[in-house]
Amino acid sequence: MKTSYNLIAGRSVERLAALSDGIFAVAMTLLVLDLRVPVEQTVHGEHDLWGALGALGPRLLMYVLSFMTLGIFWVGQQTQLNHLERSDRGLSWIHIAFLFAVTLTPFSTNLLAEFIRYRLALLVYWCNILLLGATLFLSWMSATRRGLVKSDLPQDGAAAICRRILVAQSLYGFGALLCVFGTFWSIGFIVAMQLNYAVAPRVRWLSRL
Amino acid sequence: MKTSYNLIAGRSVERLAALSDGIFAVAMTLLVLDLRVPVEQTVHGEHDLWGALGALGPRLLMYVLSFMTLGIFWVGQQTQLNHLERSDRGLSWIHIAFLFAVTLTPFSTNLLAEFIRYRLALLVYWCNILLLGATLFLSWMSATRRGLVKSDLPQDGAAAICRRILVAQSLYGFGALLCVFGTFWSIGFIVAMQLNYAVAPRVRWLSRL
Amino acid sequence: MKTSYNLIAGRSVERLAALSDGIFAVAMTLLVLDLRVPVEQTVHGEHDLWGALGALGPRLLMYVLSFMTLGIFWVGQQTQLNHLERSDRGLSWIHIAFLFAVTLTPFSTNLLAEFIRYRLALLVYWCNILLLGATLFLSWMSATRRGLVKSDLPQDGAAAICRRILVAQSLYGFGALLCVFGTFWSIGFIVAMQLNYAVAPRVRWLSRL
Amino acid sequence: MKTSYNLIAGRSVERLAALSDGIFAVAMTLLVLDLRVPVEQTVHGEHDLWGALGALGPRLLMYVLSFMTLGIFWVGQQTQLNHLERSDRGLSWIHIAFLFAVTLTPFSTNLLAEFIRYRLALLVYWCNILLLGATLFLSWMSATRRGLVKSDLPQDGAAAICRRILVAQSLYGFGALLCVFGTFWSIGFIVAMQLNYAVAPRVRWLSRL
Repeated sequence: MKTSYNLIAGRSVERLAALSDGIFAVAMTLLVLDLRVPVEQTVHGEHDLWGALGALGPRLLMYVLSFMTLGIFWVGQQTQLNHLERSDRGLSWIHIAFLFAVTLTPFSTNLLAEFIRYRLALLVYWCNILLLGATLFLSWMSATRRGLVKSDLPQDGAAAICRRILVAQSLYGFGALLCVFGTFWSIGFIVAMQLNYAVAPRVRWLSRL
Repeated sequence: MKTSYNLIAGRSVERLAALSDGIFAVAMTLLVLDLRVPVEQTVHGEHDLWGALGALGPRLLMYVLSFMTLGIFWVGQQTQLNHLERSDRGLSWIHIAFLFAVTLTPFSTNLLAEFIRYRLALLVYWCNILLLGATLFLSWMSATRRGLVKSDLPQDGAAAICRRILVAQSLYGFGALLCVFGTFWSIGFIVAMQLNYAVAPRVRWLSRL
Repeated sequence: MKTSYNLIAGRSVERLAALSDGIFAVAMTLLVLDLRVPVEQTVHGEHDLWGALGALGPRLLMYVLSFMTLGIFWVGQQTQLNHLERSDRGLSWIHIAFLFAVTLTPFSTNLLAEFIRYRLALLVYWCNILLLGATLFLSWMSATRRGLVKSDLPQDGAAAICRRILVAQSLYGFGALLCVFGTFWSIGFIVAMQLNYAVAPRVRWLSRL
Repeated sequence: MKTSYNLIAGRSVERLAALSDGIFAVAMTLLVLDLRVPVEQTVHGEHDLWGALGALGPRLLMYVLSFMTLGIFWVGQQTQLNHLERSDRGLSWIHIAFLFAVTLTPFSTNLLAEFIRYRLALLVYWCNILLLGATLFLSWMSATRRGLVKSDLPQDGAAAICRRILVAQSLYGFGALLCVFGTFWSIGFIVAMQLNYAVAPRVRWLSRL
């Protein structure tokens, strides 16, 4: 009987974590390239520079938003990988698809920053988040079904991970829907919900989300 | 007797893996820089934006293609490194040559995206893949011949790794040849074969490839 | 009782260190992109090239300054992480905010290099440093209060880490204030104090800072 | 007695290695950004594309040269770090200076590619290599003098590391001097000596270098 390549390939959780940290690091740092320094010729005094920096406001907002998005998904993926005994080829490829969505983020962020009033730009941004969530959900389903999860995970930890992804994606979906009133409603809602996830205030009904 | 520098240099598999993960991460994320956001002045409404994004189609296709290519070779290199007991200076340099081919990928991808109907662009892309495969093959030959492989590798695992590289390169070569009919035939064939490697459907004759 | 996602998320110090090393590495290397190679058409001989390179002087100075800044904060964060037993979700997010400030550095460096005589540019640069210091201080406060610190830290090590951050931030603040006399006074002072931290000469009153 | 911050800072070899791998990875991948894809408007057929790609020749040569340079110094630094028991603050800063020289490489490469016939460009490139070598030499001196080296290093291993750096730097210096005859002599000599280090042919007098 021949040993199939697929049986011995892609088993290292450590290398998957290292590639992921690298891709997150590059994507998170590339976001700053959209914050373009004002052109020298258009600035003739401190006052002009205040104006030019003020005009960067929407881009800075998008930058913060996407940095938080990537932070949330980085924590989410880390939580999964920490609880894996080992990986296999199939799971590695689900995570490569997840990382593909991570590398798309600088593009969709830039698009939304440039076209902040366009619903299509918001839709693209939301699809990006949806892809992040879907691949992360799929990877957890796949890991639990194939028995790759460590046994030290608290009994309902696996369910908690699923629930978190589903609730977050519902909120993102609701936020995206708000764009029928205007894209700023969507962006405001998404920023608020992400701040809640990042800061995690000790408010009862919020921490249940 | 003098200790030669060459005997103590380049022995860490961990550092080689870390450098590789870093280079793969940067190369995979740089690909997104080719997806350029439409210029604001040319877009006057949602409809224009749909058109402008639609025009990014071929670039998105190339992006997905190259991301899959790099993913496949990342899994391939990882599989080799996981089974190495240690490295040495010679093997490190073969992998540095492999990583050189990895860093070339954003260039050859960009070239093919810009000149998608030119056979020369496809030829360059294929040479890039050939260089990836050749260095990976060479590194495995070298590691097995010099006894750097761990003893826990299943008996015909070493052969399975070789076979996979040779079959894949034959398919890539056949795909490149298809460009006599047109570059889209080549690209379509390569996308299809890479999807097969990534998704690995449970179809018998496909999983034998 | 349900296991809250927040209890199992973000606990790995290793992954936090890996993401941090990645972001520092990208940010430190992106700084070089501001050192733009002179345009070929404007250079007609060795003499022109000397002039063109000389004109890069202020940018090179800013590059060295920011590289040192990032180096200092990298050492500072590493020192903290090395003494952590484990992380938790809250601490991870403080470090993500710290990393946000790291990714801002190429922007504020570029801004100050372009507008080296503008107080506002210096103010932005200083805010960036303040954000780095504040998040680092917050993370250490948070880690000690929540008992995440290893027990092998020398008794007054925790206080030494706090003191270092407070003294350094006071010096940075004083340096920023010097801009009432001109931005070059500020930059000169900050370069000098950072050289002191980097080189750490064996001078008594200096090493007490 | 107060615990000085300097005594507990910067002690992790692992983090230093991780930062180094990250910076090398980014610098090695950024080199490819100088290989600019020909502009579509100037290419009207396969023949034009051959010409346009041919014109990239000098840049490709510089790319290969710098990739090898970085590869050689990556192997060199790795060899040192592998033999360190631990680091300290002073050694960390020498390596941060070394990494500064690494991040300069994309700039000096680009400069020499653009001004390949200018002695000043070659001089800058050589200064970059000299800085790499000097900091690496300094770090080894410092590590051996302060007793940070592991005891499992073969007896004359420490001397072998020094000798290698000194011989290599002498050759680089000789290569740089050749520019009195023309920069191509220098570049040719450096490429040849680096190929010797990378390939390490089993020729007696060569392997003694």
